[in-house]
Amino acid sequence: MGKHSSAGAGPGALKVRRVAIDTYRENVAYLHRECPVYRTEGFQALAKIEVHGGRAHILAVLNVVDDVAVVKPTELGLSEQAFAQLGIRQGALVRVAQAEPPASMDAVRRKIGGERLVADDYRSIIRDITDNHFSKTEIAAFLVASSQSELDRDEVLHLTRAMFESGERLDWKEPLVADKHCIGGIPGNRTSMIVVPIVAAHGMLIPKTSSRAITSPAGTADTMEALARVELPIGTLHDIVRKHRGCIAWGGTARLAPADDILISVERPLGIDSQGQMVASFLSKKLAAGATHILLDIPVGPTAKVRQMRAAQSLRRLFEYVGDNLGIHLEAVITDGRQPIGRGIGPALEARDVMQVLGNDPCAPMDLRQKALRLAGRVLEFDPDVRGGSGFAIARDILDSGRALAKMQALIDAQGRNHEPPHPAPLTFAAKSPARGFVTGIDNLRLAHVARLAGAPMTRGAGVDMFRKLGDAVAKGEPLYRVHAGFPAELHFARALSERGSGFTIGRADDVPRAYVEF
Amino acid sequence: MGKHSSAGAGPGALKVRRVAIDTYRENVAYLHRECPVYRTEGFQALAKIEVHGGRAHILAVLNVVDDVAVVKPTELGLSEQAFAQLGIRQGALVRVAQAEPPASMDAVRRKIGGERLVADDYRSIIRDITDNHFSKTEIAAFLVASSQSELDRDEVLHLTRAMFESGERLDWKEPLVADKHCIGGIPGNRTSMIVVPIVAAHGMLIPKTSSRAITSPAGTADTMEALARVELPIGTLHDIVRKHRGCIAWGGTARLAPADDILISVERPLGIDSQGQMVASFLSKKLAAGATHILLDIPVGPTAKVRQMRAAQSLRRLFEYVGDNLGIHLEAVITDGRQPIGRGIGPALEARDVMQVLGNDPCAPMDLRQKALRLAGRVLEFDPDVRGGSGFAIARDILDSGRALAKMQALIDAQGRNHEPPHPAPLTFAAKSPARGFVTGIDNLRLAHVARLAGAPMTRGAGVDMFRKLGDAVAKGEPLYRVHAGFPAELHFARALSERGSGFTIGRADDVPRAYVEF
Repeated sequence: MGKHSSAGAGPGALKVRRVAIDTYRENVAYLHRECPVYRTEGFQALAKIEVHGGRAHILAVLNVVDDVAVVKPTELGLSEQAFAQLGIRQGALVRVAQAEPPASMDAVRRKIGGERLVADDYRSIIRDITDNHFSKTEIAAFLVASSQSELDRDEVLHLTRAMFESGERLDWKEPLVADKHCIGGIPGNRTSMIVVPIVAAHGMLIPKTSSRAITSPAGTADTMEALARVELPIGTLHDIVRKHRGCIAWGGTARLAPADDILISVERPLGIDSQGQMVASFLSKKLAAGATHILLDIPVGPTAKVRQMRAAQSLRRLFEYVGDNLGIHLEAVITDGRQPIGRGIGPALEARDVMQVLGNDPCAPMDLRQKALRLAGRVLEFDPDVRGGSGFAIARDILDSGRALAKMQALIDAQGRNHEPPHPAPLTFAAKSPARGFVTGIDNLRLAHVARLAGAPMTRGAGVDMFRKLGDAVAKGEPLYRVHAGFPAELHFARALSERGSGFTIGRADDVPRAYVEF
Repeated sequence: MGKHSSAGAGPGALKVRRVAIDTYRENVAYLHRECPVYRTEGFQALAKIEVHGGRAHILAVLNVVDDVAVVKPTELGLSEQAFAQLGIRQGALVRVAQAEPPASMDAVRRKIGGERLVADDYRSIIRDITDNHFSKTEIAAFLVASSQSELDRDEVLHLTRAMFESGERLDWKEPLVADKHCIGGIPGNRTSMIVVPIVAAHGMLIPKTSSRAITSPAGTADTMEALARVELPIGTLHDIVRKHRGCIAWGGTARLAPADDILISVERPLGIDSQGQMVASFLSKKLAAGATHILLDIPVGPTAKVRQMRAAQSLRRLFEYVGDNLGIHLEAVITDGRQPIGRGIGPALEARDVMQVLGNDPCAPMDLRQKALRLAGRVLEFDPDVRGGSGFAIARDILDSGRALAKMQALIDAQGRNHEPPHPAPLTFAAKSPARGFVTGIDNLRLAHVARLAGAPMTRGAGVDMFRKLGDAVAKGEPLYRVHAGFPAELHFARALSERGSGFTIGRADDVPRAYVEF
């Protein structure tokens, strides 16, 4: 590949300097405006340069600097990740060239043009993304071009395989490694924190790694962190899993499917949803985490990620197709996503619900208990020695006997107990029913938004505590939920949104929608 | 719109600090990793924050800093454009909040989903882009979603109008303001530098503003800059145009259709082509520049931007539709784009060709002369006093009489003559014919690429000088073109590419392709 070398053999080389700016998975190079290499508009407008140093070279987005404290005219500054990727010492000489777009951008442009891509195309796109050869705008172009139903199922398979192969794979050296995952979108849906202790207490291996919340009020990692440490070195993680048959940890420590993390870092802020990307992201991560058997939870409901039954079934078929072709045992269940699960929304409030269920507290939210038991029962039936249909009873027995709680306490101690678990945040207000009647709708998105404005997940005790669920009778002026916040401004924002619309619909008993799902 | 305020009323406000980094039309904020506001992964992952200071607020992409020399934990750093946009003094207190995506991203997501957008959608998208509320990835998402034939002609009209209204408009206070523009893609096609002096010599107003090369080996502004200053203050520009009836200047000084500049800064590096974006970009700029009558050059050929006659005709109809609805007089001509125009490719070599034509030099390239005369003739016929069909003869008379050259010299002196015009760069090699025969093909893209690798437009004298054109006979080993470079490395890169494929095809006389175009 020919390059436009501007340093060339002429006045030439620049001294490399580490600039302590973390540009989050995008290489950035800093060039002083008076630097002789920076001569024409085109250099900046093309946005990306190639930096050659030693035997390595990297691509980086160019920022122009007017402050010699950041970079001198004789220097080339590199952001932290760019400096690390080039891997040479401070002050070493580098050459700079105008970068050609990465070769696989041709494939991205063909995809934009509506073409079907082949396995090699996805392999080279994902390799270039993993090697930081794509700028964020190029990644956005790829994501949009492959959004919606633009990928057929073989393309999703190719993409998944390419993403899986982009990183390392954990090897648990056992024939059955279980995992359980929800596609998301339902506040309070913390079943994993109940399923894992039950399954691990049964003796089945379930090393659960989760993400933190990015656009939601809490992820499983955030909620577990209210109780215990979740950022564990990979060695410690292995030790805990070997000893306790499970863990509930943050998944970011291991370098699993790194291309997925890069894609997500662009996709989430854009707020675009793509079935193909979702399937590839999820399966590549789970494969890399060493899972052999996966139970997938697809909630369906008017304010869930998946809104119609036929869409849920089509997503399930796509998951099954890709899972089968990658040699993974995958089962998907379509669940009731009409409303949040449990009572609490936000890390501390959700952790409270989970511990009530595990502790067989009579106040424990029954919907969370029932859903967790059903999911755990299906996972237990991955065990060839468990008779079809008997998983639920085994799960219930493990929960009712206190063995699940004991396992959870063991996991908390092994990961590192948080000795000051957070309480619900002190500033509160209650959203009240505007009329007498029955709860006929609860908007997942609105409740999540109120909880986020109240400070979740940043403020662990912040969030929403629901007093009523679908079908419940309410009197006029009775509280529907209480909002907890840590700061007055956050309380104010949450209250303002809640007053514009609480997220609850009150109507007649006949209007409560039915769920037509497996459970 | 509710915001997640993290500064809130708590420990709170940060001191604003100007960070002298030019992030090229994208606001960037720098936060120290130890800053109390920066607490969770979500804050960085969401990528964008809202900064409130005084009565203004801006959106900015977040970079995390580990160096107190750049920003202290109690400070918020802002890149140059972000600091300027917020418009408060150094050290003033600001609050930071997690930004919600700009409201018009909803419309972008609908476009991604295949919906048709209405005028209000385009207005709010373009307003958000102009106000720097979009990150580059969001802009990329919009560009890809509206690429190809995803926009119908009314959408292109709405987009054009929104872009035009995003900035200022030059007012020349005359009823007929002519412009002439080529959609690009043909190396050496410097007809504007001949058309402008002819038309201005006739007395018609033609204030020509052009761009610099970004992905091509030379733009009109780069070529003119080999002879004269092109970056002129807007007042000077007006004076020159009033006195000389024309100018050939760089268009970046005035704030015309600023949304277009932002879109281009993302679109060009991505290398995606969109008819709708091209039409909107071009017409919004020309409208803002005050043009009332436009002649558009659409070259068609196997390696041109437009490759088939029907595609050229469909593009012409789209231009006509939007132009008519915006009340501009637009004529489009479809021209021969089978090969480069003239002999030189690169600023100095193209300026030489232009001056040979204007000087009636017997060595002047006839194709450049003929095309420029035909275009000038069509522009002259915008004059109601010029009889249909007689424009060409008038243009030729102005050129042959030396009045066009005199006008050009006057423009050069008025803009600021370059007293040391560049010569062809000193390092050279020749690409030779591999066989005896006739030139049956010249690849525009390959020749442009060779010229760019040789250093054009950065090195003004660099580029390609062609000795043969389509249909010419050559002997084996005869030179087809000479490459000029300023640095050995650049000569090497250009030679390597040329040796892999010169861009010339040699065949039989019968194989020379015919052009079926207007001229």
